Amino acid sequence: MDELARQGAEPVEEARLAFGGVVISMLADDEGMREVILAQRLLETAPAGTIHVNMATISVRFAEELAAEHQRHGVQYVSAPVFGRPDAAAAGQLNIVAAGDAAAIDRVQPLLDVIGQRTWRVGPEPRQANAVKVAGNFMIAAAIESMGEAAVMVQRYGVSSADLLNVLTNTLFAAPVYKGYGALIAERRYEPPGFRLALGLKDMRLVLEAADSARTPMPFASVLHDHLLEAVAQGQGESDWAALAEVARRHAGLGD
Amino acid sequence: MDELARQGAEPVEEARLAFGGVVISMLADDEGMREVILAQRLLETAPAGTIHVNMATISVRFAEELAAEHQRHGVQYVSAPVFGRPDAAAAGQLNIVAAGDAAAIDRVQPLLDVIGQRTWRVGPEPRQANAVKVAGNFMIAAAIESMGEAAVMVQRYGVSSADLLNVLTNTLFAAPVYKGYGALIAERRYEPPGFRLALGLKDMRLVLEAADSARTPMPFASVLHDHLLEAVAQGQGESDWAALAEVARRHAGLGD
Amino acid sequence: MDELARQGAEPVEEARLAFGGVVISMLADDEGMREVILAQRLLETAPAGTIHVNMATISVRFAEELAAEHQRHGVQYVSAPVFGRPDAAAAGQLNIVAAGDAAAIDRVQPLLDVIGQRTWRVGPEPRQANAVKVAGNFMIAAAIESMGEAAVMVQRYGVSSADLLNVLTNTLFAAPVYKGYGALIAERRYEPPGFRLALGLKDMRLVLEAADSARTPMPFASVLHDHLLEAVAQGQGESDWAALAEVARRHAGLGD
Amino acid sequence: MDELARQGAEPVEEARLAFGGVVISMLADDEGMREVILAQRLLETAPAGTIHVNMATISVRFAEELAAEHQRHGVQYVSAPVFGRPDAAAAGQLNIVAAGDAAAIDRVQPLLDVIGQRTWRVGPEPRQANAVKVAGNFMIAAAIESMGEAAVMVQRYGVSSADLLNVLTNTLFAAPVYKGYGALIAERRYEPPGFRLALGLKDMRLVLEAADSARTPMPFASVLHDHLLEAVAQGQGESDWAALAEVARRHAGLGD
Repeated sequence: MDELARQGAEPVEEARLAFGGVVISMLADDEGMREVILAQRLLETAPAGTIHVNMATISVRFAEELAAEHQRHGVQYVSAPVFGRPDAAAAGQLNIVAAGDAAAIDRVQPLLDVIGQRTWRVGPEPRQANAVKVAGNFMIAAAIESMGEAAVMVQRYGVSSADLLNVLTNTLFAAPVYKGYGALIAERRYEPPGFRLALGLKDMRLVLEAADSARTPMPFASVLHDHLLEAVAQGQGESDWAALAEVARRHAGLGD
Repeated sequence: MDELARQGAEPVEEARLAFGGVVISMLADDEGMREVILAQRLLETAPAGTIHVNMATISVRFAEELAAEHQRHGVQYVSAPVFGRPDAAAAGQLNIVAAGDAAAIDRVQPLLDVIGQRTWRVGPEPRQANAVKVAGNFMIAAAIESMGEAAVMVQRYGVSSADLLNVLTNTLFAAPVYKGYGALIAERRYEPPGFRLALGLKDMRLVLEAADSARTPMPFASVLHDHLLEAVAQGQGESDWAALAEVARRHAGLGD
Repeated sequence: MDELARQGAEPVEEARLAFGGVVISMLADDEGMREVILAQRLLETAPAGTIHVNMATISVRFAEELAAEHQRHGVQYVSAPVFGRPDAAAAGQLNIVAAGDAAAIDRVQPLLDVIGQRTWRVGPEPRQANAVKVAGNFMIAAAIESMGEAAVMVQRYGVSSADLLNVLTNTLFAAPVYKGYGALIAERRYEPPGFRLALGLKDMRLVLEAADSARTPMPFASVLHDHLLEAVAQGQGESDWAALAEVARRHAGLGD
Repeated sequence: MDELARQGAEPVEEARLAFGGVVISMLADDEGMREVILAQRLLETAPAGTIHVNMATISVRFAEELAAEHQRHGVQYVSAPVFGRPDAAAAGQLNIVAAGDAAAIDRVQPLLDVIGQRTWRVGPEPRQANAVKVAGNFMIAAAIESMGEAAVMVQRYGVSSADLLNVLTNTLFAAPVYKGYGALIAERRYEPPGFRLALGLKDMRLVLEAADSARTPMPFASVLHDHLLEAVAQGQGESDWAALAEVARRHAGLGD
């Protein structure tokens, strides 16, 4: 807080005092938002014309509830979760997924442009951005799992994970997700975590909850949930979620 | 054959007559190879010094048998399956995965360079290239499935597959596999097939067989096998295997 | 209500008025209980010495919350969910799974004996009975799914579901669950529902929630959830949950 | 052999010499049958009128091949795999599943009645009995898995496996399979094996092969295959296949 103040931010004693004009929040999860935004009745005391941009990864169901609450209190609400880690934010390179009233997004776009390389608009309902965000996290986990299973299988034939992933992540799978997590898997380097596996499990719950409400069976998401749960049960909750690949190793009887 | 002859190839009446020097073969599957190479006893009549480069996608188990047969008859054997479709081959842009005796690979490298942009060497045992090839095909199928599941889920919240995949395949998943198959899935364009789904099912059998022999459970591969089998049972065997994404649609109760 | 009054019951205007002495409740689900028991503050107004026997199928997590609430208000709490349909209850043939304070269970045992053929005590914490109940429902669903998959497979070889299930449910699987659901599956008779499939989906959510909290991956439960969700998405929510077997049929491309 | 001779059997030097009249065989697997029946050309030298009753658990695909071979050589062929362990055979209490020509089965029925309590006829094509047999083994494995998953989950809530299985296998699941395997799981007693887990894995391969040929996705069978493979990879291939339940334990992070 002091550090931010030195850079020109104005600390306030209560969240309520900062909740006006354009407010950008990025709290940890549904519970965190519930405590700060709803329990402290920030929407009721917000000045007229307030726009709230919520960049947190929250559940689709809670996004619906939040949208309704904002509307009830006349506060504009934009859902804008992001893809990218803190270093991407610092470099202004986040990818922002935005949904909500188009005019409201237009108004906050200049602010989004400061931290994001691009804003992807996916619809008029705030929850749509959250659906895309959890779908994206699902696809990342699926990429990790598929590399993990493939790596163990070839290893059994004497091919190193590094050799396999070197071929694939430089050709068909030459994308940031594969290169980044592929390197961690090949080196079995899960500390320090870039994104904690326990949070990945939480995200998979968000995916399955969104899928359930939408009556969409997602068998890959079910497998991922089971494997992340197993990894947590075996003590890897604090490692990087690339450690999901270790589950496949253990299932194949490969020790540490 | 006539076309090839016009370009300088010398047609022969029997496979046996062409089986000498450096032979490159790329037959359809295990059965095709068994009929041509083994049943016609080509290894027994091959001139001394023959090197056989096999670029077909075959099972790891059959690769082991072939390696033993070549050794028994004193024929050098290089396994060199490829990633890339016919247009990539025509453009000399295939990615070749090679395994076998290093000196033998060295000798054929100039030929491989004609059709490949790069040769990835993954080990001294021919079957190792096949393990990498089937692992790669598994990862492609997993990418299709994960896009398929994610696309249906967000669609239920009113976000088009195109919007979802546009965000992801231009950012975290900006890789050829995701861009290519993502476009087919977003447009539900499965005809004409670039790679037939029935062949994808065959490949998934190769993956599971290799995994079983290697005592490596691969739950994603099991799901993929079940879904490809379902797609074939429902009449999509002749479509492009991106139609795997339609399975997730039907499971969610979305009609045609 | 009138019917019950004719039989000697004393109707009251508010739930509060009946909540004293030994109270047996069997409400529909967590939400129902929350509305009646908690929202109406029945625990706060309960006379001293009240024992509440809850026979509903609720979530393990809510069972924990209820146990804490009862304790806070000095009301004794016994969790006693049942296996058996209404006709079993009428015949006094339910199987009751009870957990909670042993002395409290002893006190209500004579009442339980009226509707149950036997009471199975599984521990001192009320939630333990709920864990056993949801585990049992999971096992029933797993039995239905396994009969469904097996029936379709043999049918493809020209063996009727009836012939398969006749062999198995009269030998190795000669148990009520297999005989009962096996007959429904063999005849594809899902109306009228004995237990609605949509409730089965709800139960599978309870299983997965209990498993998640307990850090126990349950891959069979994940498959069951996906298939029940699919059945609901395809319009079978109001059929008997034996219709889960129809999912396997459709996956095999067998029409109606 | 000596023991059998003392009881009146007539040993012969070659299988061929015993292959006439009514022949009952029960060899270990496809390979064993291929070596004895086909490689030794027993069908070609069989006397006219020979009926071969094959009681082995073989693949559906090989059953088709065998049926064709017998027909080609004019030997009658009855497929008659069994449910039951050696003690059941000794007591004449096997359940026999028979398929093939009805007149041929009629002729051997008196012999089947010596070892079986009942013969279940499931169709005119020999492979149909094999389809039923592998379907039955699949259902047994599914029962073990579902008990295993349920037992671990309730255990996390402090309920013993014994208490859970006691309730269920004496009520809804009061069938030999559940009582027998339930006791082994509750006691974690996997030695000596009644049926080796490695053979269970082989059987699951037979199920999946039959399902694949029949274009029937069987997701439960896929999970079972993955788990049995994992158990073998972790060194439990020689234990009783009830040890499949240990896989769920390890996934939940429960040590030995």
